[in-house]
Amino acid sequence: MTITAIGFDADDTLWHNESMFHMTQQEFLDLLKDHGDPAEMTARLNAVERRNHKLYGYGAKGFTLSMIETALDLTHGEVPGATLERLLALGRALLEYPIEPLDGVTETLAALKGQHRLLLITKGDLLNQEQKLARSGLGDYFDAIEIVSEKDAVTYRRIFARHALPTESAVMIGNSLKSDVLPALEAGLWGIHIPYPLTAAHEVAEPPQDASRYAKLETIAEVPLWLQRHA
Amino acid sequence: MTITAIGFDADDTLWHNESMFHMTQQEFLDLLKDHGDPAEMTARLNAVERRNHKLYGYGAKGFTLSMIETALDLTHGEVPGATLERLLALGRALLEYPIEPLDGVTETLAALKGQHRLLLITKGDLLNQEQKLARSGLGDYFDAIEIVSEKDAVTYRRIFARHALPTESAVMIGNSLKSDVLPALEAGLWGIHIPYPLTAAHEVAEPPQDASRYAKLETIAEVPLWLQRHA
Repeated sequence: MTITAIGFDADDTLWHNESMFHMTQQEFLDLLKDHGDPAEMTARLNAVERRNHKLYGYGAKGFTLSMIETALDLTHGEVPGATLERLLALGRALLEYPIEPLDGVTETLAALKGQHRLLLITKGDLLNQEQKLARSGLGDYFDAIEIVSEKDAVTYRRIFARHALPTESAVMIGNSLKSDVLPALEAGLWGIHIPYPLTAAHEVAEPPQDASRYAKLETIAEVPLWLQRHA
Repeated sequence: MTITAIGFDADDTLWHNESMFHMTQQEFLDLLKDHGDPAEMTARLNAVERRNHKLYGYGAKGFTLSMIETALDLTHGEVPGATLERLLALGRALLEYPIEPLDGVTETLAALKGQHRLLLITKGDLLNQEQKLARSGLGDYFDAIEIVSEKDAVTYRRIFARHALPTESAVMIGNSLKSDVLPALEAGLWGIHIPYPLTAAHEVAEPPQDASRYAKLETIAEVPLWLQRHA
């Protein structure tokens, strides 16, 4: 089976993202350090995020609103104005930090372009994902950009059907087992997991039981060799 | 020239939206009534929204963040916790209010379906626009759904090109001259303006000078007759 189409996740696959959220969360804990211990406050923030997720979706704006809600909760409504202003500033920083491709990304995309159909498939705030792609300078490597609200098997089937790409000769590549690999396998694609050092709480998942269309690679630079072996 | 494709805006064209934002803004002014007169506070909120727009885009989450920022500004950082909690609740309400089609919408879409290619073209929060369409029950009338971060001529050209629909036999219908009509005309489409009683500050614009491909209708129910006259 030759792979004719490759879907790439963006955040933490092509460029850093979770590390920025992690640093933001560290500063949130530091701003509120008089109101609880870090583990407890992290659990509270994660619970608020989870509850808001069906309304806010993924992305920095919803995360900022959840930080503000958690801060109000932890302080019993007595958040200092300076803390709130700092949380708003942290949220804005998440929307405009410089986007640098991870090691090997540019070279790998350059090597694959023209050999396979390359799709960027990412979830989050629509405008922000467009702006991050523009800042990354990677836009021209992709034949199509798909920004979606949720990455499930239905989404992957819909995207590859719309581009008339058979799922059995397509592979999805990303850092999240839960969003990039498991639903892609369920949709009939191949799935390649390239872990990132940090995983968001809502992205944690177990590897697939059936590994026949699944691979785990150390870095994106190993993708061309994997494709040769599966040609 | 027969019109083969019709693009519909969603918010304030198919269902109420600005009236919800307007009611939310009224409550914002009421919550902060001790900190300025309504006109001045509205101007401050609009200025904050305008400044945040390039980062936040359109939609309820960005509007909520801008309300919080303006409240901090108006109170010199002394916003009561209860006010902040109310602003968060108002923002959530904007994301989940019931979506009822405006008068004539369902009948008109039913009459046009199958006769023309129907596209929904809307801007705002990706997840929220999807959820509003689902709540409206109108999803099945459309051949394609396009949720975009900005409605300009480039966007309209890209959308109609992707669906292989010639712009000169397509019309865009919406309540906003600025987002629905003027850029559609610039892209080579026809444009129909159906005003809504309220217009957001960032959507105000003058009608086109050249009216050859432009019409203003009172209600969406007049669209089938307009199409017959232009067949």
